[in-house]
Amino acid sequence: MDVLELKLKEHGQEHLLQFWPSLCEEERNRLFNELNDINLAEVTEFFRHTIASANEEEEKLDEHLQPIPPELHGAITRTSPELLRHYEHLAMEQIGQGRVAALLLAGGQGTRLGVDYPKGMFNVGCPSGKTLYQLQAERLVRLQQLTEQKTGLKGAIPWYIMTSEHTKEPTQDFFRSHDFFGLKEENLVVFEQGMLPCFSLDGKIILETKSHVAKSPDGNGGLYRALRDRGILDDMERRQIQYIHVYCVDNILVKMADPHFMGFCLSKGADCAAKVVEKGFPTEAVGVVCKVHGHYKVVEYSEITLPTAQKRNADGRLTFSAGNICNHFFTTQFLRKVISDQEGMLHHHIAKKKISHVDSTGKICKPDKPNGIKMEKFVFDVFQFAKNFVVWEVLREDEFSPLKNSDQSGDKDTPTTARLALYSLHQRQVLAAGGIFVDDEDIPLPLITSVPTVAGSEAISKNETNNNEIQKMCSKREEHLICEISPLVSYAGEGLEELVQGKKFRPPLLLSSPSESNGFGN
Amino acid sequence: MDVLELKLKEHGQEHLLQFWPSLCEEERNRLFNELNDINLAEVTEFFRHTIASANEEEEKLDEHLQPIPPELHGAITRTSPELLRHYEHLAMEQIGQGRVAALLLAGGQGTRLGVDYPKGMFNVGCPSGKTLYQLQAERLVRLQQLTEQKTGLKGAIPWYIMTSEHTKEPTQDFFRSHDFFGLKEENLVVFEQGMLPCFSLDGKIILETKSHVAKSPDGNGGLYRALRDRGILDDMERRQIQYIHVYCVDNILVKMADPHFMGFCLSKGADCAAKVVEKGFPTEAVGVVCKVHGHYKVVEYSEITLPTAQKRNADGRLTFSAGNICNHFFTTQFLRKVISDQEGMLHHHIAKKKISHVDSTGKICKPDKPNGIKMEKFVFDVFQFAKNFVVWEVLREDEFSPLKNSDQSGDKDTPTTARLALYSLHQRQVLAAGGIFVDDEDIPLPLITSVPTVAGSEAISKNETNNNEIQKMCSKREEHLICEISPLVSYAGEGLEELVQGKKFRPPLLLSSPSESNGFGN
Repeated sequence: MDVLELKLKEHGQEHLLQFWPSLCEEERNRLFNELNDINLAEVTEFFRHTIASANEEEEKLDEHLQPIPPELHGAITRTSPELLRHYEHLAMEQIGQGRVAALLLAGGQGTRLGVDYPKGMFNVGCPSGKTLYQLQAERLVRLQQLTEQKTGLKGAIPWYIMTSEHTKEPTQDFFRSHDFFGLKEENLVVFEQGMLPCFSLDGKIILETKSHVAKSPDGNGGLYRALRDRGILDDMERRQIQYIHVYCVDNILVKMADPHFMGFCLSKGADCAAKVVEKGFPTEAVGVVCKVHGHYKVVEYSEITLPTAQKRNADGRLTFSAGNICNHFFTTQFLRKVISDQEGMLHHHIAKKKISHVDSTGKICKPDKPNGIKMEKFVFDVFQFAKNFVVWEVLREDEFSPLKNSDQSGDKDTPTTARLALYSLHQRQVLAAGGIFVDDEDIPLPLITSVPTVAGSEAISKNETNNNEIQKMCSKREEHLICEISPLVSYAGEGLEELVQGKKFRPPLLLSSPSESNGFGN
Repeated sequence: MDVLELKLKEHGQEHLLQFWPSLCEEERNRLFNELNDINLAEVTEFFRHTIASANEEEEKLDEHLQPIPPELHGAITRTSPELLRHYEHLAMEQIGQGRVAALLLAGGQGTRLGVDYPKGMFNVGCPSGKTLYQLQAERLVRLQQLTEQKTGLKGAIPWYIMTSEHTKEPTQDFFRSHDFFGLKEENLVVFEQGMLPCFSLDGKIILETKSHVAKSPDGNGGLYRALRDRGILDDMERRQIQYIHVYCVDNILVKMADPHFMGFCLSKGADCAAKVVEKGFPTEAVGVVCKVHGHYKVVEYSEITLPTAQKRNADGRLTFSAGNICNHFFTTQFLRKVISDQEGMLHHHIAKKKISHVDSTGKICKPDKPNGIKMEKFVFDVFQFAKNFVVWEVLREDEFSPLKNSDQSGDKDTPTTARLALYSLHQRQVLAAGGIFVDDEDIPLPLITSVPTVAGSEAISKNETNNNEIQKMCSKREEHLICEISPLVSYAGEGLEELVQGKKFRPPLLLSSPSESNGFGN
């Protein structure tokens, strides 16, 4: 105890024992263990460093910014079908040989979504009732099948899920209770990212209760420490994984281990890469991937001035348009180097937050404005170490619809927008495969717009009726828009011809595989 | 009476007199006059023709579609500042000589918006409390001043407002009671578009009450008849107007008589033109301007198949991308030809609607599904007659944010999105002129995103706090986002330097001209 007290004093954190005299034996043990587990020298140094870099004159980066060179910036819309097939083939060869893994960043809790369990366990309300975790698991199952069909190789895609203190157990229980959704148990590796104490603005570690320190996950960039400290990279190397697709849990359209993206990276010999979408307009709140002082970096729109954000190429496109959607490619080799030599060079970012704490009388207070600091690393901060960085641009309406807020919030990125994005994509896949959607009177239904927006009242002529209908349907009669294809049937629209060609469908439509019991197609 | 009865019979409309025996004298007079005013031969022919063309095998247009040739498709993002200044100069010379007019299509009522008065009278809730009409009026006032400053010419921009039966009087009263918002009374011309009877699905004119026929405005393409029948084109010619900017009431960002657009059209010698925004994604519900069988046309996304909607050029852009936003340029000469020779060739479009009607006992029924047909022409259907058609593409975030639905609807295009679009534009104009926005602690505020969307949770690093703030502000603390510049101060961002350069602003900000009393800038 004296040793601990001394150590706390040394780092200016002796207030953590202020309630010691009033604690019972059990509380004392708990607090003692908690404090002993904290590397005080390290975390207080993190704090100093984080504050110092946040306080540095925040110089705008404009002058030093360069876009990704065109030859390193591929785009699905500018790639021929032949080349796409070539990419797919390259990727599937690696998948088939078991050299590709998917890695999910799922440390966050669904606070903004209004749930108290891991976001991946959220059921967005599609007819299948599938959760984000299930949709993703089934995409992997299907991609493995597809790879086998195309290459004859029976490789598995191990799935790593990084959770945090609060999401690990529920995640494990969830997969176990659902028989891993058809994946082999051995191919699912759930691990935990690190936690860091929260600090008050003046550098004191915050007590959440009299005997418990306030902590939070160390950001999605905590990945790299966790890869090392939890032996995850070792596990990958043991399995001879060479390529890893890292992504976030909240994008309902995510194409895990996407063969186009992976194949593009392989063809370019990339060690590190980002999948991006074109930034929509200069003030859109999305980070852009670019080059700063010769190193690749994600730059926030607040780090540049308006003229730079508005800068356009001769063709009218935004110069800085590579919008980061947290879809990354890494080689195992690259990650090995990061965790061996470079992780320590990644600095924490500061996030001012409202953090519950005890006051001097021991009462728990919930502040109504930010009172403390959480320290977070960002997964994309390793881009700077890349020797061979590339960017692959995809279409937002096909691949990106994040789930962030509850429907009640009145905000964007809700369960409703996520569902609609999925239905729109799947409707287009059915149409592309020769299926037709009709209403009760056999009249073809209009396309579902991914985002139900009607631009320009007078832009709409004949179909004003239909469009008004769509508007209404979105809120009231959503069933008329429903089109869901099980990932077990199709990973990305492939193989639908034999199921839908020449057929008429009256929504709601759910195309399920024979192994599922809940389809109501045809 | 016998003559009328005979005429009705001749056109199969004798049911319109079914309640005659039970009507009082006054009702009989009213009905008699109403029926006498209807050109039965014409409207029943319209009906037959409309139904016939709607029933024609709806052939998809895909094969016949061509995009606007690049040399006729200008874009603000692909035009040099020098050339833009040249366009501005060309336009202002014409404005200064009094040869340019603005024409507002305002026949619709604010039903979807949930108000029972003309949409133009809607106050969107900006700090100034200005209505759409006032914002537009003041833009004209400012543009006249600006033209005088730049050219020394004191031309007025006459403003024509096409209303309908229901919106004419309130519109006139509104302008009169507000002293025409600084415009000269003689330069405001309010006129009325025609009305057409509504038909049941089997071709009977609908009785709304026992003594009153159901009617509706004849669509925004009713403009051309009204230009002729109300003597409006004559009035234009008397004033020696040569160029007309036609637009819809609901776009809060509309740049009336926009010198860039007008100047581009002048430089190309266009007789007819459309301002467009780039279509966002293939299934967006916006009409695209393109060429069909060699004629220019707005094609709805339902008139083409998905592959055509998804077609892209080698540079990755949508091939059919010219999204119509109801902003048109016409020469008086072109309009004269239209109303003399061509108006009759424009066919009505069919809109199935719920129309209140009397049942056989005389009771008024409000149907819950479409029971009748309104016939409407579309303003853009004259594109086919253009000899020299061009398209001018502008940025959505700068020029297009339509007001369609109430905030309660939970839909897009609400007063809130309209306000935010205006604030975002004006904030960018202040920033571009050297002003700075700071919070209570003097820390620079982030940019307002036109559409408050945060793409990718992990896309946001340092500013997660700020972005969360923005999200919150949008719903709760909107005042922190408020930045409104009176049109009397600046038409499109010009002239702000002396007011804002080097200054710090804490929102809400309202920059007003000295002639206004409600500013709270600085």
